[in-house]
Amino acid sequence: MIDRYSRPVMTAVWEPERRIRRMLEVELAWLEVLAPVKRIPRRELAVLRAVLTGGPLAERIKKVEESTGHDVVAMLKVVSETVKRRAPRVDQYLHYGLTSSDVLDTALSLQLREAADILEAGWRGLLAALRPLARRHRSTWMVGRTHGIHAEPLPFGLKLAGWHAEGLRCLERVRRAKAVVATGKLSGAVGSYAHISPAVEAAVLRRLGLKPETVATQVVPRDRHAEYLQALALSACAVERWALEVRHLQRTEVLEAEEPFGKGQKGSSAMPHKKNPILCENLCGLARLVRAHAGAAYENIALWHERDISHSSVERVSLPDATILVDFMLSRFTRVVSGLRVIPENMKANLERSNGLVYSQGVLLALIDAGLGRHDAYDIVQRAAMTTWREKTPLRDSLWADPALRARLPAKALDACFDLAKYGRAAGAVMKRAGV
Amino acid sequence: MIDRYSRPVMTAVWEPERRIRRMLEVELAWLEVLAPVKRIPRRELAVLRAVLTGGPLAERIKKVEESTGHDVVAMLKVVSETVKRRAPRVDQYLHYGLTSSDVLDTALSLQLREAADILEAGWRGLLAALRPLARRHRSTWMVGRTHGIHAEPLPFGLKLAGWHAEGLRCLERVRRAKAVVATGKLSGAVGSYAHISPAVEAAVLRRLGLKPETVATQVVPRDRHAEYLQALALSACAVERWALEVRHLQRTEVLEAEEPFGKGQKGSSAMPHKKNPILCENLCGLARLVRAHAGAAYENIALWHERDISHSSVERVSLPDATILVDFMLSRFTRVVSGLRVIPENMKANLERSNGLVYSQGVLLALIDAGLGRHDAYDIVQRAAMTTWREKTPLRDSLWADPALRARLPAKALDACFDLAKYGRAAGAVMKRAGV
Amino acid sequence: MIDRYSRPVMTAVWEPERRIRRMLEVELAWLEVLAPVKRIPRRELAVLRAVLTGGPLAERIKKVEESTGHDVVAMLKVVSETVKRRAPRVDQYLHYGLTSSDVLDTALSLQLREAADILEAGWRGLLAALRPLARRHRSTWMVGRTHGIHAEPLPFGLKLAGWHAEGLRCLERVRRAKAVVATGKLSGAVGSYAHISPAVEAAVLRRLGLKPETVATQVVPRDRHAEYLQALALSACAVERWALEVRHLQRTEVLEAEEPFGKGQKGSSAMPHKKNPILCENLCGLARLVRAHAGAAYENIALWHERDISHSSVERVSLPDATILVDFMLSRFTRVVSGLRVIPENMKANLERSNGLVYSQGVLLALIDAGLGRHDAYDIVQRAAMTTWREKTPLRDSLWADPALRARLPAKALDACFDLAKYGRAAGAVMKRAGV
Amino acid sequence: MIDRYSRPVMTAVWEPERRIRRMLEVELAWLEVLAPVKRIPRRELAVLRAVLTGGPLAERIKKVEESTGHDVVAMLKVVSETVKRRAPRVDQYLHYGLTSSDVLDTALSLQLREAADILEAGWRGLLAALRPLARRHRSTWMVGRTHGIHAEPLPFGLKLAGWHAEGLRCLERVRRAKAVVATGKLSGAVGSYAHISPAVEAAVLRRLGLKPETVATQVVPRDRHAEYLQALALSACAVERWALEVRHLQRTEVLEAEEPFGKGQKGSSAMPHKKNPILCENLCGLARLVRAHAGAAYENIALWHERDISHSSVERVSLPDATILVDFMLSRFTRVVSGLRVIPENMKANLERSNGLVYSQGVLLALIDAGLGRHDAYDIVQRAAMTTWREKTPLRDSLWADPALRARLPAKALDACFDLAKYGRAAGAVMKRAGV
Repeated sequence: MIDRYSRPVMTAVWEPERRIRRMLEVELAWLEVLAPVKRIPRRELAVLRAVLTGGPLAERIKKVEESTGHDVVAMLKVVSETVKRRAPRVDQYLHYGLTSSDVLDTALSLQLREAADILEAGWRGLLAALRPLARRHRSTWMVGRTHGIHAEPLPFGLKLAGWHAEGLRCLERVRRAKAVVATGKLSGAVGSYAHISPAVEAAVLRRLGLKPETVATQVVPRDRHAEYLQALALSACAVERWALEVRHLQRTEVLEAEEPFGKGQKGSSAMPHKKNPILCENLCGLARLVRAHAGAAYENIALWHERDISHSSVERVSLPDATILVDFMLSRFTRVVSGLRVIPENMKANLERSNGLVYSQGVLLALIDAGLGRHDAYDIVQRAAMTTWREKTPLRDSLWADPALRARLPAKALDACFDLAKYGRAAGAVMKRAGV
Repeated sequence: MIDRYSRPVMTAVWEPERRIRRMLEVELAWLEVLAPVKRIPRRELAVLRAVLTGGPLAERIKKVEESTGHDVVAMLKVVSETVKRRAPRVDQYLHYGLTSSDVLDTALSLQLREAADILEAGWRGLLAALRPLARRHRSTWMVGRTHGIHAEPLPFGLKLAGWHAEGLRCLERVRRAKAVVATGKLSGAVGSYAHISPAVEAAVLRRLGLKPETVATQVVPRDRHAEYLQALALSACAVERWALEVRHLQRTEVLEAEEPFGKGQKGSSAMPHKKNPILCENLCGLARLVRAHAGAAYENIALWHERDISHSSVERVSLPDATILVDFMLSRFTRVVSGLRVIPENMKANLERSNGLVYSQGVLLALIDAGLGRHDAYDIVQRAAMTTWREKTPLRDSLWADPALRARLPAKALDACFDLAKYGRAAGAVMKRAGV
Repeated sequence: MIDRYSRPVMTAVWEPERRIRRMLEVELAWLEVLAPVKRIPRRELAVLRAVLTGGPLAERIKKVEESTGHDVVAMLKVVSETVKRRAPRVDQYLHYGLTSSDVLDTALSLQLREAADILEAGWRGLLAALRPLARRHRSTWMVGRTHGIHAEPLPFGLKLAGWHAEGLRCLERVRRAKAVVATGKLSGAVGSYAHISPAVEAAVLRRLGLKPETVATQVVPRDRHAEYLQALALSACAVERWALEVRHLQRTEVLEAEEPFGKGQKGSSAMPHKKNPILCENLCGLARLVRAHAGAAYENIALWHERDISHSSVERVSLPDATILVDFMLSRFTRVVSGLRVIPENMKANLERSNGLVYSQGVLLALIDAGLGRHDAYDIVQRAAMTTWREKTPLRDSLWADPALRARLPAKALDACFDLAKYGRAAGAVMKRAGV
Repeated sequence: MIDRYSRPVMTAVWEPERRIRRMLEVELAWLEVLAPVKRIPRRELAVLRAVLTGGPLAERIKKVEESTGHDVVAMLKVVSETVKRRAPRVDQYLHYGLTSSDVLDTALSLQLREAADILEAGWRGLLAALRPLARRHRSTWMVGRTHGIHAEPLPFGLKLAGWHAEGLRCLERVRRAKAVVATGKLSGAVGSYAHISPAVEAAVLRRLGLKPETVATQVVPRDRHAEYLQALALSACAVERWALEVRHLQRTEVLEAEEPFGKGQKGSSAMPHKKNPILCENLCGLARLVRAHAGAAYENIALWHERDISHSSVERVSLPDATILVDFMLSRFTRVVSGLRVIPENMKANLERSNGLVYSQGVLLALIDAGLGRHDAYDIVQRAAMTTWREKTPLRDSLWADPALRARLPAKALDACFDLAKYGRAAGAVMKRAGV
């Protein structure tokens, strides 16, 4: 992923050097279990452990790969050259009985788990930023909109509580995704444990905090990785939904909220007056990329027989890119939430701009309660509403002008329909159950 | 979905008539809770209940919708006409305080739950068909293949155990997906409970076996429906993987298994000799469609403000199509599994066809155990293997021709490397943990 | 596709009965060419021709397919039974030397061409509806918006001209797509012309108005069908873009245009005041479906060897669904365009609502022309603009309050920057080149 | 894109530094046209031109962007600082009347054209490698396979000719894609030419070899970029199809061809005997990524009003990644084609392995010509074929054992059906029309 949409904390997970360390962790854990059997001295294991924390290896391995055409073989060669003299038995038994995927897939699970940890932290941070904002706007009135059309009054805090509830679902999905990929395998070339036993595999994986794959082929089944990416895509789509909301709220005609606009920032090279919701637009775009990677992951599942390697190229790109992008999105949207400029007076002005139309349902129900049939009541209110749309007269007046309504509803009862308070009655309880 | 890929059991879930019943179930449950408050007589509720199990409504509603341009309004009109005379208070309070989505989305959850129940049954049936097949082939030897190239020997039962383990994951995903969509909402136009309380909503939903949505907008948030479809896509991809395997096994040159071929069936209009794996090819195609729908579901999440209705057209197609297709896939693949013709003698012949190459790793490890360095050992075995590839001499002989090997390994030790038994040592244990 | 999103004109193309006729057309054309060689009497050909225009066959074929498991074989059986007695030599030579795909794929090309003809007509109709609307609003001023923020004044007609230009590109794409799929094949089982010659194939296809596939496998290569669907997806995305625009223009706060709202229509079951842009929201949803099908088409290209049949199930769904949906979208959006309620007074009011901010670039350029450096000029205008955003003072006044500006620009020159006229100078020429 | 899948020639197109040069080319072309009007001295233009070929700018611009939050503004600042002193009028009029997208989108078109040029060259190289291979195997017999099952004999050269024909279509698509994106725009903030005229735009674009966009919004419409990416996806899918074929041919049981396997290459870290088609598997994976990007491009089309910037983040990733990947794929597959090891003796052996089944259609037709009805003839041949499948007796013998056949066909006529020659009759002509 390009720097512009990357944060170092996540990029680090996917650096070639880190990947190699993860693979060596697996090789080491295996040797530690193997040591008593093959009489590998402790001090030799220490030599290998030192490589793990030692100087860079990636460049040398890449060079060797050019002739071997195989990255794990190349890594083994380079490590061998490094430890051979001081740890001959480690050299001899390194990778003993393993196939490359035993190491690669187990290491990949470690990477994916690490990435998920970062995403979890990202979600927790975003949710923590959301909560006070939601609480602050517990009673900030705005108009709820469906189809882009004014619907009924809504406390802004309730909208934000909805984000929080969806965010919690996303967090839970990331957690589950982490569990889904937390399996490793050391079952060998075709998953038959021909040269290593399930018990030994379990011992090695325990050291790494992973569980053995129920039944592996040469590789960990790719439905796990696809499921992982689906969780990420759902995270991206949640952020997209909220970013889209901010973009709508920042529209010139609406202007109820604005994403942060830096001092010294320019909105346009041509029009000095511009303040554009570019952070949120950017997030909407990035969601498309994450979704695209999640889609490609499905195609990695149906490998040939005990595996083919077509998934590998996809994963070398998609797994870093998707995790880096979602991490970036969470971070960027946390910044948007933290710096969101909310403009309650515009919310109020907009709410009032539709001349009371937003109370139409209340009147409908009052007419029903007054004994009118639903369809008759509906017609009365719709008629008045259309007048209000057309002539911008307050809905209350359009209604009152109708004898059919006056015949049913005293003025006081009509006025009661235009009371904002009841639209917020449940907000507290709902916000509470949303965890805000 | 076209008939060709539909089973009536699932199609029924999505029939217009059934959908209307589901919506009326919601309206009825609401009226039952509302009845004491608004003094709606029991016998009037019975009138509405009779409509639920009565004659068809869909055609009449469709007709009314042509003028209202709104399907729920049309339904209310038709129901109203039906019950008005005999149940005036039901007529008056029908849909009282609700918005269309309260009914639509709650009814949709009921439909999705029903669909998931059918898929669960489908998965259970498929897994039940898999188990005896896997057990029967606990010791049927075949060659494990990676990259399409012979790798190491493998009991066919172990391959099938891998299917079973993945199937169990898919079943679990369907179950979770069912739970994810098992929420309803009666929180009104923008989710603010302006005209109905959370407590009442809870009472209504309890009757329907659903939970209240944590925070709804006008609609149940669409991340739930997207998650549901991802679970279905993973089911489809699992079946695709296995169907792909059958296609590979049925290749003329491999011919280790064949999908059922009916008496009277013709493989080709031109070539009378053909028996093609068309069921499995068909399943691979259908998986593409399911995945495509799952992809579209992501785009339904980011609705405008408290909702727009762009998701509706997608869901009217995708939810029936994806559930119908996955149901069909499970059923068709169950048929493939149940009628699979396994040809153990060809499995054996193919295993032997690579002249012992599949035992190369055992020799490599024996040489290491005999004190050779990994890379030297590898070179010895690779050299002999290349000879075997080229000249089709048994690998054992190619190896024995090499003095470097003979210097390290006595003939007996070499022979021991070509023992099939050890490749099945773990099969029993693994099949057990796979639930076979 | 469900009825709700289908028009009979396109549905007809894909009816099972029509498909069979198309296949018989191919068989007949082949027999006509074969007749002189195999001495098939004219009157026998007439018997077959009569079947083509005769009673329904689909049900009988479907029944036979149940035992043959092959739809073309089933069709041949049914036709054979029908013509056998009166046309024995036709019966004998029907399908002679052909493989099913010769007939299926050639017939499919005929169907795709017919579908494209309908889409072309749909595009022409939509463009014809657009042109007068664009011309009518040649000088209807509105604000141009980028990022949802007011940018600069824009004649509404110019926006519509942009739609027209994109529509012309889409029409051209549909035409090209039609040409791309207008190939047939009669090259037999693996495309080797083993039993029929290229010359004969050419003669048959000429009768059908198709060209021979350059090199077929058993099937016409699927890159053609994928390309066809990409063209359709681009059509869908164009309509989506415009529908999205209408939705934006119909927002309560903007309300510059409204899609048609029928007499008797209800916008909401709960809120009688609602008029929602449901047609346009619906179109945005449908675009997602079309795109999804286009994505699946890519996966149909890489078939095994001379073909596998995995593409078939996808195409049986995707080709009808995508063509039906795009046809429906064109028709529905034509209705939106034809019935669009444009509200010029709101356009004007909105344009003025940003207090002259939309003229900021003109001032910037005037200051540059007056000798100021770009960055200094920008700072002056940005400063004033921020004041206007904040305090809603007209931009002209905010600017004039700045001595730095007054030092450079006389009042008259400043005023000239706020002249609407120049923003429309090029509209005529551009609209002309857009074909409006 | 990661280095592993990138070639420097394409990566260079997308380097930040190159992008800036492209943007400066546009600014310069505009100033050259503006120069006579605004009296900008030639020597000042030379100063700017020197910047274009001078030292690196990207780092400085990136730094300034941190405060402006706008990359074009940052570039203008940095260029301004560089030229201000020596070219004050250039500094003053740089970007005069332009909006950022005028520069960005026009520069992007230049980049996309350059990328397409490289892809064209890649396609020409691949096709050039294909042609001699196809010609060489004009008469190399292999079995044609449909559904993975032996169908009829096929010259290998004909298969390759099919690749060539599809490759020519892909090349043509890339050419057309290049033309589609070869438009620029200098029509300003909302495409209204408020501060620059169409005639001037045309003059500037002529210098750059581009055409003016028919009707731009603030940006060049994104249907063009989506169409561009679809062309690339079709290229990727073509390579995928062929790579899939090589993988099939290299299967151990088939082994009719092998992708190049380097000296010193290791197929597996565990199994020294392995030679895996990893290049081709890799290509199949990369196609998934390209398709994914093409899918995301559709979502970039429906921007808000005169544009939002959500497409930008997608394009910053997708356009480089997709072009780099397709370039890499073409290059890698050219290497596969050039180094392909074809094994004619295995092709022949496989062809013979199905015991003459591949000639079944010829017998069917001979029986028809001998006066038998199609369905009776079919039954005779199918019966014999099933015997051959089961008992591996030559099909000729299975047939001859059937009195029903013997009654119709003399031995000589039967033998004639098993003549390979006729399966290659048309190969020459077809290869010619495929351009081989």
